[in-house]
Amino acid sequence: MSLLDELRAVVGDAHVLTDPDLRAPFERDWTGRFGADALAVVRPADTEQVSAVVRVCAAHDVALVPQGGNTGLVGGGVPRGGEVVLSLTRLNTVAPVDPALRHVLVGAGATLAQLHVSAAAAGLATGLDFRARDSATLGGIVACNAGGARALRYGTARARVAGLEAVLADGTIISRLSGLAKDNAGVDLSQLLIGSEGTLGIITRVLWQLVPRYPSRVAALVPLPDIESASGLLAALTTHAPALEACELLTHDALSLSLQHQRRTNPVEDAPFYVFTELADHEDPTPQLVAAFEHAGIEDAAVADDTTSRERLWDLREGVAEAIASVGVPHKLDVGVPLAQLGAFLTELPLVVRAAASDARLVVFGHLGDGNLHVNVLDAGDHTDTTVDDAVLGLVLDHGGTISAEHGIGTAKAHWLERARPEYAVLQGLKAWLDPAGTLNPGSVLLRATTT
Amino acid sequence: MSLLDELRAVVGDAHVLTDPDLRAPFERDWTGRFGADALAVVRPADTEQVSAVVRVCAAHDVALVPQGGNTGLVGGGVPRGGEVVLSLTRLNTVAPVDPALRHVLVGAGATLAQLHVSAAAAGLATGLDFRARDSATLGGIVACNAGGARALRYGTARARVAGLEAVLADGTIISRLSGLAKDNAGVDLSQLLIGSEGTLGIITRVLWQLVPRYPSRVAALVPLPDIESASGLLAALTTHAPALEACELLTHDALSLSLQHQRRTNPVEDAPFYVFTELADHEDPTPQLVAAFEHAGIEDAAVADDTTSRERLWDLREGVAEAIASVGVPHKLDVGVPLAQLGAFLTELPLVVRAAASDARLVVFGHLGDGNLHVNVLDAGDHTDTTVDDAVLGLVLDHGGTISAEHGIGTAKAHWLERARPEYAVLQGLKAWLDPAGTLNPGSVLLRATTT
Repeated sequence: MSLLDELRAVVGDAHVLTDPDLRAPFERDWTGRFGADALAVVRPADTEQVSAVVRVCAAHDVALVPQGGNTGLVGGGVPRGGEVVLSLTRLNTVAPVDPALRHVLVGAGATLAQLHVSAAAAGLATGLDFRARDSATLGGIVACNAGGARALRYGTARARVAGLEAVLADGTIISRLSGLAKDNAGVDLSQLLIGSEGTLGIITRVLWQLVPRYPSRVAALVPLPDIESASGLLAALTTHAPALEACELLTHDALSLSLQHQRRTNPVEDAPFYVFTELADHEDPTPQLVAAFEHAGIEDAAVADDTTSRERLWDLREGVAEAIASVGVPHKLDVGVPLAQLGAFLTELPLVVRAAASDARLVVFGHLGDGNLHVNVLDAGDHTDTTVDDAVLGLVLDHGGTISAEHGIGTAKAHWLERARPEYAVLQGLKAWLDPAGTLNPGSVLLRATTT
Repeated sequence: MSLLDELRAVVGDAHVLTDPDLRAPFERDWTGRFGADALAVVRPADTEQVSAVVRVCAAHDVALVPQGGNTGLVGGGVPRGGEVVLSLTRLNTVAPVDPALRHVLVGAGATLAQLHVSAAAAGLATGLDFRARDSATLGGIVACNAGGARALRYGTARARVAGLEAVLADGTIISRLSGLAKDNAGVDLSQLLIGSEGTLGIITRVLWQLVPRYPSRVAALVPLPDIESASGLLAALTTHAPALEACELLTHDALSLSLQHQRRTNPVEDAPFYVFTELADHEDPTPQLVAAFEHAGIEDAAVADDTTSRERLWDLREGVAEAIASVGVPHKLDVGVPLAQLGAFLTELPLVVRAAASDARLVVFGHLGDGNLHVNVLDAGDHTDTTVDDAVLGLVLDHGGTISAEHGIGTAKAHWLERARPEYAVLQGLKAWLDPAGTLNPGSVLLRATTT
C-alpha cells in the first residue's frame, strides 16, 4: 500500500487531508513567517492512532511534524516542505477533575481555554495562561514547556505536569499517568519530552496539576523612570506581596503601540518603562500591593480592583504582540537575561540593534519576574536576514542569558543552539538515540550531527 | 601510571583511601544490608577533580560508585565489590542565599542540615526535610529525587532544583546554573539526572530553590478507626487547610514500636491507624486545623502548638524507622499506591505478607498525602531471600502503584524494574547511550541489556 493509503487505513479517509485548501491552515504559522507544503495532514483520533501513524511514516521514511493549535512562534510546528503534519486537535478530551489530587487528564489537543473552563467549574485554576489560550493545546504547551505571565507564581508547564503519555519515534507508547506525586522507579522519561518540541516523542495525554483559585485580585500599571526602579518594584513585590502572580515589563514603545492599536489613552503618565502587576489571594490583596508600593516609593499607578478594569489593563499588556503585528512582521526574539544583568542588557540592546540594522525599530516587553524579554525588531529586513537576530542573541549570551526563554528553538533558532549549548553533541546524541531515522520534527531544535 | 597513582595525581595522596579501616565507613550502608569491598575511596575537592576522576576510571575501565552522605536505603551508593567509591562530601560549600530569587548554590556534598541553617539565616526554608538531614547530602538528594514528609506541600527534590551542574560518564561537565526560571533553549538534561541515582551522571552542584519560612505552626496526632477515616481526614485537610504541610500515616504497630523505643506513652487513644499532620502559615493555622477536624468529624487528637511539643510529636513519627531497626533488620519496601487503592492495598497486604512468610511482622507507616507507604517486614528471612519483597511489590503493581516512591531502585530493586516499567528497553538504551562503558554505578537501577 502507498503511504497515504496506509494512513487512511489508520485514521479514516476523512482525516488524511491532501487537498491544498484543507491543508493550508496547517501549513503556515500565524505570524506568516514559517511554513511550506505538507505531503498530507493526518488527524488521528487517539493515542493508538498516533502510534500507528508514527509507525507508518517511519516505515516509509517520511518525516512527521507534530502540531497542536499552531500557535508556536519559532516555526517548529509547521512543515519545512514535504513532511506529514500530524495534527493532534482531535485528541481533545478533558476528563473530570479529581478534586482530592487537583488533577485533570487532558488530551494533547484540548485547548488551554477548555482547561480553564474545567478548572473553574471545579473551583480551581490552571496555573498557566497566555493570549493564545483559545487555540494553544495542552500537548503543545507541554512539548514546548510554555511559560507566560503566571509562571512567576506557578512555574512553567513542567511544574504543572503530574504525568503524561507519549508516543516515541518507533511507535512505542510510554505512559506515566498514575498521578503518584512520588515515583522514583527509574528515570522519568516524561521530563525529557517536556520542552523537546516534538523532536523526541509526541505527547498524547497530559495529567495536569491544577492550582487554587484565588477569588480576590488586584492589578496595577506603574510608570517608572528607569529599569532600576522596575527591578526595585519587583523586589518589593517579591518581599511584601506573597500574593504576587504576575510582574510584567513594558517599554514606552510597547505600551504606546498597544494603546494606539486599541485606540486608548495612557491611564498613567508617560514613562520610559512600565510595570504591570497582578496579585491574587483568598482575601483582598490590595494591602500587600500598598505595602510593596510604599517600600518601592511608588506614588503614581493605575490600580484596578474590579474585573472589568483589570481585564482592560491585561488587554494592554497582552495586546502588545498584536499591536506589533499590525504595523509589520517583526524579528521576534524571546530571550532570558539574569535579573542582575537586565539593566546592562537593556542599555546595550538599542546600540547593538542599530549597528545591525540602522532603520530598525525596537519594541521590548516581557515577564520581568522571570527576566524574560520579548525583543521585537521591526524594519530589520526579511526574517531570512538574521543580522539583527545574531546581534541580539549574541548580546544575550554575553550577559549569561538564554536564547529562548519560553518560545523554544524550533526552526527559527536551530542554527543558534550549538553556540548556546556547549554540550550540543550530547543533545544530538540524545536525538539520534531516541529517533535514529530522524522521523520526528527533523530540522527543528537540533541540526543533524554531521559526523554520523 | 597505575589507576591509584593517577587518582592520587588528581586529588592528592590523602584523598585516595585504600586502608581498609579508612574505607570501611564508605563500603557499607547504615542499615547493614548492602556493601562490599571497594578498590579505593576517592575524595575529590571540586567539579574539575570529579571530572578528572571519572576520566581516569573510564580509561582504566574501572567502575565508579558515587556516594554522598551514604544514607541511601536501596544499596545504590555502596560498592558491589571492586569499584572505586567516589565520595562527594568535600564538595560541601554553601554560597550566600540570593534573596531576590531565593536561590542558593550548594555543593553536592553539603548536607541538608547545612542548607537548613543557611535558609533559616535568610528568613527562608529548604522545603524538603527528612530524618537523615545531618548526613544526607544535596547531591544525593537530587540524584535520588528525595521526597520526605514535606513533599506534600513543596514537591520532591525535582521541584526545588533551579539548576545543576554534573559530570557525565565521559568526564564532560554540563552546567545549567544561570538561575533563569524560564530556559527553553533545547532539552534540559538536568531533568534526566534528577532521579537517575548516579547512573547517568554525577551531580556536583545544585542551585536550590528555597521556600517561604512560615513562623506559625501546629501539629496533631489523630487516632483513627480505619484507613477510610484517615483518607477522609486527608481530604478535609486538603480542602480546608491551605497551610497543610505534612500528612503522615502510622499504623498501630508503627506507633507502638516508636513509643516503646522512646519509652513514651501514647498521647492519644490506642487505634488501628494514626494520622500525624502539621500546618504552617504566616499566621496561626490552628483555625484551619479546627475546621478540617470539624469536617472530618475528629474529636480526639493530641494537638501541639509550641515548638517543644511539636518536635516531640515529630520524634514519634520520625523515630519509627529507628525503632524498627532496634528490633531487627527489616525488608524495607518504599512503595506508592494511588489514594483510591489505599484501602484495598492495606487490606490485602497482611494476607500477602503472611502467605510469603508466615512468621513475618508487618510495620507500615508513611506519607499519606502522597500515597507513599514504607512497608517494613521483620522476621521474613535474610534480605537476600526476596520472597516477601516479591509478594509486596507484586501487590503494589496490581494496584497501579510504584515499586519505589522516594527511596529509588538502587541495587535492591534493580531486578524488579523491568516488571514495573514496560519501556525498560528504552531506559536501558538511555543508559547505554550516556554511559556506553558502564562506568557509572553499574548494577544499580538498571541491569545491563543482554542483547548489546
